[in-house]
Amino acid sequence: MVNYLGEYKVIIPGAADFRIKDPELYAQYYGEAHPVPEKLGDWVYGNPELHREQLVGAARIACAGCFATSVILALYPLLKLGVVMGKDIIATGLVGSSAAGASSSDASHHPEREGSLRVYKPVGHRHTAEAIQELPGSFPLHLTAIATPRVRGILTTAHVWVPDGYSERDVWSAYREVYGDEPFIRIVKVGKGIHRYPDPKLLDGTNFCDIGFEMDNDTGRVVVMSAIDNLVKGTAGHAVQSLNIAQGWDERMGLEFAGLHPA
Amino acid sequence: MVNYLGEYKVIIPGAADFRIKDPELYAQYYGEAHPVPEKLGDWVYGNPELHREQLVGAARIACAGCFATSVILALYPLLKLGVVMGKDIIATGLVGSSAAGASSSDASHHPEREGSLRVYKPVGHRHTAEAIQELPGSFPLHLTAIATPRVRGILTTAHVWVPDGYSERDVWSAYREVYGDEPFIRIVKVGKGIHRYPDPKLLDGTNFCDIGFEMDNDTGRVVVMSAIDNLVKGTAGHAVQSLNIAQGWDERMGLEFAGLHPA
Amino acid sequence: MVNYLGEYKVIIPGAADFRIKDPELYAQYYGEAHPVPEKLGDWVYGNPELHREQLVGAARIACAGCFATSVILALYPLLKLGVVMGKDIIATGLVGSSAAGASSSDASHHPEREGSLRVYKPVGHRHTAEAIQELPGSFPLHLTAIATPRVRGILTTAHVWVPDGYSERDVWSAYREVYGDEPFIRIVKVGKGIHRYPDPKLLDGTNFCDIGFEMDNDTGRVVVMSAIDNLVKGTAGHAVQSLNIAQGWDERMGLEFAGLHPA
Amino acid sequence: MVNYLGEYKVIIPGAADFRIKDPELYAQYYGEAHPVPEKLGDWVYGNPELHREQLVGAARIACAGCFATSVILALYPLLKLGVVMGKDIIATGLVGSSAAGASSSDASHHPEREGSLRVYKPVGHRHTAEAIQELPGSFPLHLTAIATPRVRGILTTAHVWVPDGYSERDVWSAYREVYGDEPFIRIVKVGKGIHRYPDPKLLDGTNFCDIGFEMDNDTGRVVVMSAIDNLVKGTAGHAVQSLNIAQGWDERMGLEFAGLHPA
Repeated sequence: MVNYLGEYKVIIPGAADFRIKDPELYAQYYGEAHPVPEKLGDWVYGNPELHREQLVGAARIACAGCFATSVILALYPLLKLGVVMGKDIIATGLVGSSAAGASSSDASHHPEREGSLRVYKPVGHRHTAEAIQELPGSFPLHLTAIATPRVRGILTTAHVWVPDGYSERDVWSAYREVYGDEPFIRIVKVGKGIHRYPDPKLLDGTNFCDIGFEMDNDTGRVVVMSAIDNLVKGTAGHAVQSLNIAQGWDERMGLEFAGLHPA
Repeated sequence: MVNYLGEYKVIIPGAADFRIKDPELYAQYYGEAHPVPEKLGDWVYGNPELHREQLVGAARIACAGCFATSVILALYPLLKLGVVMGKDIIATGLVGSSAAGASSSDASHHPEREGSLRVYKPVGHRHTAEAIQELPGSFPLHLTAIATPRVRGILTTAHVWVPDGYSERDVWSAYREVYGDEPFIRIVKVGKGIHRYPDPKLLDGTNFCDIGFEMDNDTGRVVVMSAIDNLVKGTAGHAVQSLNIAQGWDERMGLEFAGLHPA
Repeated sequence: MVNYLGEYKVIIPGAADFRIKDPELYAQYYGEAHPVPEKLGDWVYGNPELHREQLVGAARIACAGCFATSVILALYPLLKLGVVMGKDIIATGLVGSSAAGASSSDASHHPEREGSLRVYKPVGHRHTAEAIQELPGSFPLHLTAIATPRVRGILTTAHVWVPDGYSERDVWSAYREVYGDEPFIRIVKVGKGIHRYPDPKLLDGTNFCDIGFEMDNDTGRVVVMSAIDNLVKGTAGHAVQSLNIAQGWDERMGLEFAGLHPA
Repeated sequence: MVNYLGEYKVIIPGAADFRIKDPELYAQYYGEAHPVPEKLGDWVYGNPELHREQLVGAARIACAGCFATSVILALYPLLKLGVVMGKDIIATGLVGSSAAGASSSDASHHPEREGSLRVYKPVGHRHTAEAIQELPGSFPLHLTAIATPRVRGILTTAHVWVPDGYSERDVWSAYREVYGDEPFIRIVKVGKGIHRYPDPKLLDGTNFCDIGFEMDNDTGRVVVMSAIDNLVKGTAGHAVQSLNIAQGWDERMGLEFAGLHPA
């Protein structure tokens, strides 16, 4: 566990130790009691889009998880604006092999892993705790994670329902309203061509979270899609952006890479 | 459209023309009225697991769609046994590039397509009509299709809720009861190791539909997973199996390939 | 090392212990003296195309190596017919990740291995010894092996020079003459289209060795290409074919799989 | 063909029109006479490592080809220093799908192209002309190009022979002497670990040419390996670097991207 008592001026662990504020929620998803629950309140959750103000001057930043980030950023605007109906929310994350870490294993052996599409966490994913904590409102949220043949990247699809009369244009306005000034969030929704929706293929090495959506007018279901590079926006880049804000620097510093295409 | 008046003894089109029995359902998902609605009743839907008896002697077999097959086979036992609660069902299909057909396009151009994770049909997928028609009961069903870097294969995850007291062991019994004698359905659910759940990587060239599931005991959510090779069980193999049954032959004939590993 | 004294009626090791007949050649490429050099003569080299007659009734068959097989089968006809000039022969093998074995390692970790093009044996590949032993004539032969992103398969290109006046048609005749009746060798050379030359992509799971060639008329250089599935023709399938011959069975038995396309 | 008479101050075409200075060499590899042979002498070949001095102030820069670049940079030091024996030189280039251009075709259709290892130009590759022109000395040079499953990147292996007494340390010195100050050439040769030799996987988006080598002490054969991103060092990045030199700017400007790992 991170040395939360250390003398360092700023600590931004990549690990999950201090992301969750509620010891009970922590215990539910991590399977054991938190060893120093009285310290949980000292940390700011390292998600700039939700906590920019608290991050200013922060010295203890609990860097957000990658899958959690893709779920939270996908759903935050609609939940913040209170337009989501109370149905269960299903979010499915498609992740690359780098999400399993840098150590080799039987599961990561190339002949086994290449070309694989495997559900690896159908229920009980720990990042659910972060999403429950950070997303406004109270609702049942279910996360499922599937391994794909990519190395980097997460594509998350989440399904929510909006009330009668709420249009896709309203959805668009909601995302614009909440994310309009965000330097690393892009709304990707194009009527034609190949790149109509977010695709992590375009994001390797970047700090962007691309978000798209599509509405089923017959049912009010909105499918929200978000794509990130889990090794940047999901982890290291997220930490850098949070640090930049904490220190009063340009939050884009060190995160300028715009990506490669094709790649 | 298939020459449904033809003199051929047996017709098994791969196309979707005669899969749907209800002209209104057809129109809803295909965007136009069916040209010969009076002929729709002449066809048996080519899914051996659901219609083996009707297939015996059948001369007009409407071969099932691939994504529809993965959804139907995943959900059929629980719906047939009436243990699914009335919540919306979300099914997500991860498909390979062969699903888009044999013709090249900008979207299938290798530099664009390789490594891509793209939602290509978030709402309104036509195969929804087949799943609605074939699955027992009445409930809201939502399909979302996502392109993955594989060439062959579909992995579908579907989320349903079962009543209090219904256990994972009961789920297992349900699949055993309904599919116990099926030659091409395998329950894949292992506690340890790499291959705990279905993976289309293991199914290239085979007629198997591998089915797994996992239950969230806290919420009663069951995540059902099904994997097929869309070019076999989803289409051609499905047709061969249906023909074998129609003609009274061994239904496994021509479908013996057991797959490669690793591949 | 294989129990060469064992009581088994037939022994066909997949390992390399008894492939080389000359102890000095063995020592040169394996870096140590052979422990039982007096036993080397007891074994037939398990390559049906070169040793079909010796394999009949054989009880000790040293199964050929995969890269060696692709090199030997590519070059054998031209060398047997004595039409290759005395220049150095360069053969380059592009192999998949399964060639490195079933155990995971840092090098086989998917994030590291996927998409990689790495020379892993530029000089001194052990299979050179098999190729030198089996190919007719005396000439300098150099093998280089490169890891590619595939799981299965080897594509080998080899460069030889033929005398003035020897035409591409003559090359074709040479391969027809030597391999015309071979059940698992196919000459792949088409003027148009995608599949003009051998490609291991088409061979997963099959026992075929596809061979193609192209001649540079200005210089007399012939580029010979061979493709195999290293897990079949290179190893297990090769052993099965050799056993079939040894036992007097149909040599194609158990090797009927014709491959998948696309895959 | 490029408007070579245009009023533009600087012209750096990506096309091959003015790369070759000798009309006969052009005709040999391009299959037709050059339309304006009298203009060929106006152009500087856009390879900074070989022509940095001529590039200063240049207004007509014929940007080098990608495969040619990988061959030229691999072989230049040894040929410049005159230590290569007169044997035929074989160079094999493994290229990604982006090398075939941005237009879709049957050959680039993902189900066909993915996982493919296909020789697409066994003999007569046009870039041979560039390599013959640019490399010092006179010797037979043979290029073979093979398509691999990557999107970007070229890995080239070339085989040359050095005289008795010339050691691998001497090879190392040769590359140091010629490329020691080059900002975009790195010698990659490590005794242990995964990344012992150049691999285009590490170079996506960068302007680096990584070069490695290995010597067969028994025969004096040196296998030289070079890796580039064909869409940067091979084309656009090469042009930018040449322009920077031509204009007297820092030649690294706009080419700072250091690459991603893993990717």
